This record gives sequence, structure tokens and C-alpha cells, in this order.
Amino acid sequence: MAVLVNGFVCKNPMDVKAEDFFLAAKLDMPRDTKVSKVGSNVTLINVMRIPGLNTLGISLARIDYAPLGENPPHTHPRATEILTVLEGTLYVGFVTSNPENKFLSKVLNKGDVFVFPEGLIHFQFNPNPYKPAVAIAALSSQNPGAITIANTVFGSKPAISDDVLAKAFQVEKKTVDWLQAQFWADNQN
Amino acid sequence: MAVLVNGFVCKNPMDVKAEDFFLAAKLDMPRDTKVSKVGSNVTLINVMRIPGLNTLGISLARIDYAPLGENPPHTHPRATEILTVLEGTLYVGFVTSNPENKFLSKVLNKGDVFVFPEGLIHFQFNPNPYKPAVAIAALSSQNPGAITIANTVFGSKPAISDDVLAKAFQVEKKTVDWLQAQFWADNQN
Amino acid sequence: MAVLVNGFVCKNPMDVKAEDFFLAAKLDMPRDTKVSKVGSNVTLINVMRIPGLNTLGISLARIDYAPLGENPPHTHPRATEILTVLEGTLYVGFVTSNPENKFLSKVLNKGDVFVFPEGLIHFQFNPNPYKPAVAIAALSSQNPGAITIANTVFGSKPAISDDVLAKAFQVEKKTVDWLQAQFWADNQN
Amino acid sequence: MAVLVNGFVCKNPMDVKAEDFFLAAKLDMPRDTKVSKVGSNVTLINVMRIPGLNTLGISLARIDYAPLGENPPHTHPRATEILTVLEGTLYVGFVTSNPENKFLSKVLNKGDVFVFPEGLIHFQFNPNPYKPAVAIAALSSQNPGAITIANTVFGSKPAISDDVLAKAFQVEKKTVDWLQAQFWADNQN
Amino acid sequence: MAVLVNGFVCKNPMDVKAEDFFLAAKLDMPRDTKVSKVGSNVTLINVMRIPGLNTLGISLARIDYAPLGENPPHTHPRATEILTVLEGTLYVGFVTSNPENKFLSKVLNKGDVFVFPEGLIHFQFNPNPYKPAVAIAALSSQNPGAITIANTVFGSKPAISDDVLAKAFQVEKKTVDWLQAQFWADNQN
Amino acid sequence: MAVLVNGFVCKNPMDVKAEDFFLAAKLDMPRDTKVSKVGSNVTLINVMRIPGLNTLGISLARIDYAPLGENPPHTHPRATEILTVLEGTLYVGFVTSNPENKFLSKVLNKGDVFVFPEGLIHFQFNPNPYKPAVAIAALSSQNPGAITIANTVFGSKPAISDDVLAKAFQVEKKTVDWLQAQFWADNQN
Repeated sequence: MAVLVNGFVCKNPMDVKAEDFFLAAKLDMPRDTKVSKVGSNVTLINVMRIPGLNTLGISLARIDYAPLGENPPHTHPRATEILTVLEGTLYVGFVTSNPENKFLSKVLNKGDVFVFPEGLIHFQFNPNPYKPAVAIAALSSQNPGAITIANTVFGSKPAISDDVLAKAFQVEKKTVDWLQAQFWADNQN
Repeated sequence: MAVLVNGFVCKNPMDVKAEDFFLAAKLDMPRDTKVSKVGSNVTLINVMRIPGLNTLGISLARIDYAPLGENPPHTHPRATEILTVLEGTLYVGFVTSNPENKFLSKVLNKGDVFVFPEGLIHFQFNPNPYKPAVAIAALSSQNPGAITIANTVFGSKPAISDDVLAKAFQVEKKTVDWLQAQFWADNQN
Repeated sequence: MAVLVNGFVCKNPMDVKAEDFFLAAKLDMPRDTKVSKVGSNVTLINVMRIPGLNTLGISLARIDYAPLGENPPHTHPRATEILTVLEGTLYVGFVTSNPENKFLSKVLNKGDVFVFPEGLIHFQFNPNPYKPAVAIAALSSQNPGAITIANTVFGSKPAISDDVLAKAFQVEKKTVDWLQAQFWADNQN
Repeated sequence: MAVLVNGFVCKNPMDVKAEDFFLAAKLDMPRDTKVSKVGSNVTLINVMRIPGLNTLGISLARIDYAPLGENPPHTHPRATEILTVLEGTLYVGFVTSNPENKFLSKVLNKGDVFVFPEGLIHFQFNPNPYKPAVAIAALSSQNPGAITIANTVFGSKPAISDDVLAKAFQVEKKTVDWLQAQFWADNQN
Repeated sequence: MAVLVNGFVCKNPMDVKAEDFFLAAKLDMPRDTKVSKVGSNVTLINVMRIPGLNTLGISLARIDYAPLGENPPHTHPRATEILTVLEGTLYVGFVTSNPENKFLSKVLNKGDVFVFPEGLIHFQFNPNPYKPAVAIAALSSQNPGAITIANTVFGSKPAISDDVLAKAFQVEKKTVDWLQAQFWADNQN
Repeated sequence: MAVLVNGFVCKNPMDVKAEDFFLAAKLDMPRDTKVSKVGSNVTLINVMRIPGLNTLGISLARIDYAPLGENPPHTHPRATEILTVLEGTLYVGFVTSNPENKFLSKVLNKGDVFVFPEGLIHFQFNPNPYKPAVAIAALSSQNPGAITIANTVFGSKPAISDDVLAKAFQVEKKTVDWLQAQFWADNQN
């Protein structure tokens, strides 16, 4: 019988193979940034894709940005992220916790490095209207999770009561209803 | 010289006093729910208020809700929350991570208990138009932090670029600008 | 086949329900304080009662105290406790480790908060001969454990050798034997 | 200025010396077992004695037992203990948490190994009326702490109210008073 | 006075700036692979270079390999590594613990991903005699450390006794002496 | 069905027995130091030998050294080690990480204590040509692992390419080939 740790198979050390720690992930290849309206695509290599990552506390991602595309405001509930720009330019930032809610931002060029601390809301935006951008990011968990704010708040299944959201966002219910009627697609796939 | 651990004073065991582990917090007393437009008030007893909590991984809060008041969608970047209702009724829920974004909700009556897992977006809403509600919540960190989604996204200082937010929330920039012009007050004080 | 983490079922995220994070625990209702001779009753909501608490590091309890009742000296081997008084008055305290063994104590009134650090021997006592008391406590583990000192030392099954206990407590063996013949009931149920 | 971590000096890697990780502890030499009435002496090598242990999560002890001497019931709030007998025979045991309070015990001969799980009440007793015993124990913390039950409950400074202890131990107050009047010395020095 | 955590400055949240989380690291630029005889150069972005990484558990590196250059067998005592190839080809591998000492290896092309588990001896080698190679690697610590086996065993300051090394490596002392006389330069700078 | 935690059986608290925490390990008896050419023998009591150690973070070992025998340079990827000498004399040391690679060493006599920090390369050598030596060591993991440097680098199965090792150790390939042809036996059994 398979032994599971964290719900993933834990192999006998006698049986491990190099393939358990390997993926032909094609992280060098551009990805389609039209999978969602925000114009980005996150290719995450986590424990679901490399079983040998189990218990090891790290994962890696390539992110493609269309011109004016963005990886919209989101959090990782279990990971800090460190990112470097491979191609193009990115306007990035995160907001600190209550009550300060300070917005710290930076324009990153190729080769620059930026850190998004665990659990904070952050984004990356490609300000160039003509050229795509590419980044490599690493996350401090084999299963970091991602919570895209707009999708989670306005695109949950089922929808959160519009009473709750109208008051929280200080808008009329019909605005909430209109937002909830949009198509909220995940930009990771 | 004072010894600091996590940035807080770590007393010599010879010098600790009962007062280091105590607070006359008046958690039995109703609090003013008009401190913010959402109609709630969070009284959090964390390591800033009881120094003896340092390194011990827990904190406690009382939350007051006006009729139709809410503790709006937020996350705790470093803590799970467990809550019980002392007075009134609460409609509570949280949304799971991408890509499912499942909304799990429940109406809680006095004495019921609910859990909000670490890092997930959650809220509590008092559906009763006439009566206030009160809850006691505990958090699995001496400094759990709180990130109110609306305040962080639309009320950060300085503001996040409206290009970024318009695309993320699929609204026009003027809607973002209107939201950013609102007064976003913290409901914890 | 069910996936287990820490010996508890770990559900597929697709299958979780609000009920996995909920309990109609009736924490608002008084409990019978005559379940043990010490005059108290601990209602603990841990991972055995809310499966969704698994891995999340927190639990919640209501404690009822008869007049002159107590939650006798005990430890939690895996948790710190933070407590607030809902009704009545409590005389509480804990003792620090060897070699100081300092006893830190406080009389708590309604709304006061006190912290019992992980692993230390502590108790709560209701000094009022006429009125009951009630507290809400939170613990920094989904399975904090409890070790009541008297029950563990004098009521273990089988009994610890009276040679060992007589020397440890500097009493005669017949005193130990008399103590071991008492009925040591758990005050948590 | 010295950098402190956990309240202990953290040296620059350029400045560390072998002496920071060394102690001429004389663990091969018998120690005086008359330092306390229980007839044992614990020589603990922890971070206070070897500064290089800081953050490394382990410590080591030699324990000497007089004939019929014991290391009386105690807990380590931050460590598991693993022990082997160097000389003589030991009757050892620990009691599990509420509600089972199972007492697990064993007679250990030279070369045997036994484990006392973190936070549980345990003891070692030398059943031989003529010969001393010696053990080496390791603990899973650089600062495990020790809480001797009798000393903590009956010898705290100041004393715990005899109302509390009389009810907890189901004895008369005068028995508690008599116990509190004894001299409770630490067996570690 | 500055507050230190882990020996690094911990800023007041009111004072943090985007620059605390940023480095113009020029990770897009080739580095000189002649800094050591092994023909590689590791550019590590850790907490010494981005102070905001403190406590966040991650770091990032660019590694340049000359034709036939290698990042020689080494361990990271506090981190797992995940690596992807940006340019060229790499022959990579690690060896499991005693007693199996299984060598798991793979030839990686551009875009492939490989994982080196925490603490295991691993290397990367560029098998191409004409073209350089480049990789990006992430490590699960803000201060992962690196221990190059050859440098540590044969190039320590002062030298390890040749009696010890001759027996350990089953060679004559003069071979050890010859090895210890080589120049062992670090390939990270 | 058996519940597994970390791949080891986790018993119901109702079913645990003293035997789950015990081993008649005969740590008082000399062991054969001829099991490998290095002249030492490590008897490790870990979770594979005492199931009750699971999750408890500690293990214990006896190490026997022949005259001029050694426990050759190795690391423990998941544990710090603390050691005391029972018989004889030991020359011990460890080397710090890159770039310093400082060698810290000490001659230990009976009763002395030394610490080898987690993940660092260390050894013990018996400098006495006539007398054996014996040590007791404790490790801060129930499954610390061991990586003997020579065996791992030159005795892996299959062998690491001699191109890689020749460059890493600055020797000719035929020297590597000769080393790889030796018999590399584990000194733990």
C-alpha cells in the first residue's frame, strides 16, 4: 500500500528515481496570455507536478504578461514570493496590513529582483503597450496556493450575498450584481 | 539592556510578574460600532497589549456588530480564526483558493462555533436589522495581522494605479477612481 | 480511500463543506459542574469535534465553575491558553519552571484576559461561595491535550508505585495509598 | 554591540571558536545525590552552559541516583527525552494525557533505552537499596525546562492557596499546609 | 535603537520602503566563470542582499557555467533547491543518504526543472565543450548556506589532520597533502 | 487499518504500550569496529528501532572507535549532534560553511561534551594507537540521516561521472577511477 505524507505518496528511499524530482516543464517557452482577460498566464511547478517536492517547502513559476497584461492583486496564503524579470518591464507592488495599508511599488527591469512577503496582497503589471514581459518567481511552499482577490470576492461559487459586498465595498448592490455577472477566469493553467 | 525576541522585550524569568500575562480588557463591554461605515468593531488582544504573549502563538478578540453591520471580507496572513457567537446571529463564510473559489457559508446562532482557515478571505455579517451581535474569536498567532480587502485594494496609501485595478476588477477607471475617493477606515481600534 | 493527515481525514478541496468547519456547540449554555468533585466542566471544541481544524493550530473551550469550583492544576503539553471571564470571578495562576517555581496569580473579573504559557502548571478557581463562573478559553493547538496533575499522579491506571510517590511528595506510603484510592474523574466531557 | 538571538549572543561566523561548542563537563564523574531529599542529581548541559547550542534544539544530561533515589515526577515543557542506563537499574515510567492517564512503565537495565514524550509526567527510580545508578539522557531542546510536580505544586513561591490544592488533591487543608511547609529543593545543580 | 531579528534589522512597519524588498541584481547579465577553477559562478540573492527577506524563508540565484564548467558537489545545510535551465544543457544529480547512496541524475535542457532535496550532496555540470550554460535556482531559506565538499574537506582553514583524511578517503597521506596544497576558491561572489 | 504519520504507524492512545517506547539496545556493550575500513561502528537508536519516537524529534547513538579508528567526515541533513566521551580520547571537529570553511577542532577526554551543528561536515578520530574509544551521541531528529562524504562522493551507486569529480577535486580522472574502485562500506549497522 502506498504511504502518504500530506496526502501525497511518500516513496520508499529504495524506490525513488530521478524522474520523481524532474519535470520537462518547458519554462523557456512563451505561454498563451489570453487564457483570462487580465492578460497573463502563470505556470506553477508545485508538488502536484513534481512529487519529489513533498515536504520540501519550495516551488517555481514562469509568468507571461501580454502588453498591458497583469497578474492581478492576489495573495499566497502559505508562501513568500521572490521574482526576477527575464524579459520586458514590470510595475509591481504590495500593500501592508491594517491599519497602515502602505502601498510599496517599484518598476522592475530585466534582471531586477523583488520580494512579496507571505500573505500580503500583491500584483505585477506590464506597463508596455507593445511588448510582452516574462518573469521567473519562486515560492516558499511546495503548495503555496493563490487567492485572486477579484475572482474570490466577485466570482465565488456560489456568490457571496450582495448585501455583504455592497457594504464592504461602499457601492450599490447593482454594481455588485454587475461585477458578479462577469466571467472570472483563473490565469493559472 | 532589554533583551528583545521578535522585537518585543523578553524578560528574565526572575522578573516576570502576573501583570505581564494579564489585561483588564473589558471584553464584557459593548464597543462603538460606528468607528467605520461597515458597522463593526474588533477589539484584539495581541502581543502589543499583553507582552507575555510573545512567542506563544495565540490571541483573542471581541467583535461587536451593529444591526446589519459586518466585519468585511479580510484575511489574517499569519493565523487561523475560531469564533463563537455570544449574542445575536451571524451570517459567516470564507472562499477557498484558486481555482475552485468555493464559498462556504453558515448562519450562526448563539453558542455555535465556526473556523476560518489561515490566509483565506472571510467575513461575518449581522443579518438582523434591529439587534446587534457579539462574537468572541481566537487566532493562532500572537500577532495575526489583518488585511481588509476593500481598504487594502482601494484605500492604500498611496493609491494603486487605476490601470491595474480597472483591469483586475473588469470595471472602468472612473469606477476605480470613485472607489479610491471613499473614506476607508479600519474597524479595529 | 480516505487520505489521512495527522491521523485525521484530509478531504479533497473539491469536497469540503461548511459543515466541516462548523459545530452547533451550544457554548452559550451552562454545563453540569458536578461531573467531577472539583466543581467544573470543560467543553473543548478541538479537531475531534470539528474536522476542519486539522493542521490549523487552534481550539476553543467553554469552562463552567460551580461556586468554589475549580479547574484544578493541570498542563497542556502542546498549547498556550488565553482566557477571558464571561460570568463571575476567577482566581487564576500558574507556576514557572524549576528552579524558581514562581507562582503568578491574579483575580479576574468579567472581561479580563489572562495567558497561561505552554506546558506550565496552571489552574482557575471560583472564590465565590454562592455564584457560578464561566470563562471562554482558546488554545494554540487543534489537539492541545490536558494533564490534570492529581489525576495523573494519583489516579493513573495502573497506579504508580507508592515507593516512588511517597519519596517524591515527602509523605508516608499510607497517605499515597489513601490518595490512590480516591475516585479521580476527568472534568472534561 | 552583541547580536542576540533568543536572548543569547549570536556570534559572527568569523569569530566562532571550538570553545563555543565545547564543555569540559566531567560527565564521567559521579555527582552528589544528597543535594535533595529525593536522592538524585541532574547535570544538564544546555544553552546556558554551551553557547553554541543556541537555535540547535538539543541538550544532554547525566543523572545520578542514590540507592532508592529517584528523579521524581516532572515534565519538560519544551522537550522529549531519550535515556539510556550506564550503571545500575532504573524503574521508569510516564502517564498519558486525560482522560486515559495510562501509566506505562519498565525496568531498565544497563544499555536499555527509553523515551519520555514531550510534556508528559515521568520519573526514574532506582529500586536497588544498595547500589547507585547512572543514566545519560538527551532532550530535544537547547533549553528544555523542567517542572518537578511536587516542588511546583507544594513548594511554589509564594504558595498556592490551600483552598485550591485541598480541593484538587481531595485532602484536608491541614495536609496541604503540612506539605507546603516541607523543604522542596531542586535536584538539578 | 535598531530592533534585530535573527541578527538582521527588523524595521518598524511604518518605516518600510519598497527598496527594502528590491535589488537591481542584474540577474540577466552573464558573470565571470573564471573566479574559480571549476568554471562556474553563483550569484545568490539572500537576506544579506535584500534585508526584507528576513524571516521569509526563500532566496534566489543565477548560476553561470563555462563550457565543461561545473557547480561542484556541495550541500545547502538549511534549504532545498529547485532549478530551471535558462541557456544550454546541464548534467545534474544528487546522492541519497547512507546506506543506499543512490545517485539520481538527469540531463536537463532549456526549460526543464529539477529539485535537490535539503542537505543532500548535489552538483550541476555543463557537458558542452563549446557553449556556456545558465540556470536560475531558488532555495527554501533566506540564508541557505553552502558547503562545497572539496573546499571544505581539503581546503579548510586550518587543514584537517591528514591522518583523518587519509583513512576516510582510503588514500595515502601524501595524496591528502597534495590535495590540501591546492588553491580552493569559492565559486560564489 | 493502521494510521500512518510520517510513514510510520501512529497508534491509538488506548493501545500504546511501554514497549513502544523501549529498546533493549545493549548500548553498554562494545561493538565490532571492523565492519568498515575506517575502524568505527555507529549504533543508532532512531524511529525505525523505537516506533514511539515518531514526531518526537530526537534519537540516540553509541559509537565505538578502534585504536586509530574514526567516524569519517559526514553530515546529518536533519539534525544537530551533541556527544560525550565514555571511554578513551577523541579528536573531533567540524568545518563551517562557505566562504570561511573554518575548521574548529578539539581533543576530547572522558566526560567532555561537544556539539556538531546541523548539516555541517564533522568527524571523530581516536588518536590512540592502542586503546579503543566510546562515545554517546544524541541527534535532534527521530530520523537524522547520515551522509558519509567519501562513500557518497566516490561510492555512490551508480558512480558519479569522473569528469565531474576530477574537476571538483582537482585530480586526474584515473585518481577518481581508483577511488571509485574502492569498497565503501557503511560504518552504521
